[in-house]
Amino acid sequence: MKISLNQKILSRNEECAKKNRIFFDEHGVFCLNVISSPGSGKTTTISRTIKDLGDKIRIGVVEGDIKTDTDAQKIRDAGGEAVQIETHGACHLSAEQVYNALKALDAEKMDVVIIENVGNLVCPSAFDLGESKRVILLSVPEGDDKPIKYPGTFAEADVVLINKIDLKDYIDFNLERVLADIRVVNPDAAIFQVSATTGEGMDQWYDWLINKNGAAQSAR
Amino acid sequence: MKISLNQKILSRNEECAKKNRIFFDEHGVFCLNVISSPGSGKTTTISRTIKDLGDKIRIGVVEGDIKTDTDAQKIRDAGGEAVQIETHGACHLSAEQVYNALKALDAEKMDVVIIENVGNLVCPSAFDLGESKRVILLSVPEGDDKPIKYPGTFAEADVVLINKIDLKDYIDFNLERVLADIRVVNPDAAIFQVSATTGEGMDQWYDWLINKNGAAQSAR
Repeated sequence: MKISLNQKILSRNEECAKKNRIFFDEHGVFCLNVISSPGSGKTTTISRTIKDLGDKIRIGVVEGDIKTDTDAQKIRDAGGEAVQIETHGACHLSAEQVYNALKALDAEKMDVVIIENVGNLVCPSAFDLGESKRVILLSVPEGDDKPIKYPGTFAEADVVLINKIDLKDYIDFNLERVLADIRVVNPDAAIFQVSATTGEGMDQWYDWLINKNGAAQSAR
Repeated sequence: MKISLNQKILSRNEECAKKNRIFFDEHGVFCLNVISSPGSGKTTTISRTIKDLGDKIRIGVVEGDIKTDTDAQKIRDAGGEAVQIETHGACHLSAEQVYNALKALDAEKMDVVIIENVGNLVCPSAFDLGESKRVILLSVPEGDDKPIKYPGTFAEADVVLINKIDLKDYIDFNLERVLADIRVVNPDAAIFQVSATTGEGMDQWYDWLINKNGAAQSAR
């Protein structure tokens, strides 16, 4: 990214991220920007969260993908409301794309908006979308060396979800190493070990989300 | 990527990719550009290939990572020669970075040069490195929807390695769907089901590599 990211693109994105942030503050909407490699389980995690919390908090989803609207469809199947952005080759979502999607989603009526970014552990981390908090997913099969190999991405996380923890016994994955390596670049992030497939550990994540959402509502 | 890829950067990369291609042709070096998501098993696949074929063909590796030289170290531990490029934030390798690494590797003495690109299923596919063939890895835990969600990347593959096939029984993964979806965007790619961890299916991949490398040598 560095080679092609110029200041002009970043400044324009920052301007628009500010607009999004003002929108979220004004409407008391708590917004998450969810970033990970392809196939870490972002859609499965969001779908399960909607199924389990959908009667307590109203969650809207902005889906980012290079191509297809299959993820938005999965969110709707889970009972959520979703707007799909197809980037047609672009490797990350921009704040402007999100701004337009928020209108289509009637986001002011939501308690929580979850943005599922394009599957990419590198580029999305350079683009502020105006989110309240940033969530990074790392799935067990990706390996325990990811925090040291992608330090910039993990440094910006407010939450790290270590997903597919149910596969731990089948894979050589040093959990202690991962936890320690995340702490080197990010002393403050909340870290939860979860399986969005089996449900293991999801309660801690839900507690965090309900708690932070409540705080966002009261700050309104 | 689209937003920030301008013609100037791509033309400069094309120029340098041509230089690399001429270098490979002149020296009878067969070069692979290996692309996948983070954690699909690129390094493990390359390490096992070196362990199993290292006495028949001399393989040099150019490693691309955002940060750390741990992958180059793994290749050396497997008995291979490796040069590490740290991109310091950049999301893909450029032909120019590879050109410089080829000198450091004494690549003219190699039979095969394998370039392990930065872990990213999107951006690297837009940058020709002058390689002879392009290899895309997709690992089973990433899910069976990746070919339709990243069609541009799979369309450019000469080989698709479906890796971590040993985990198939633990994961909901529709292999037939993956094979069919790859064929929609890419009728010609060789597709091998492998596990670089257990060794399952690797022989087919080795046969392909030895065969293509032999053809490159005779064409010299």
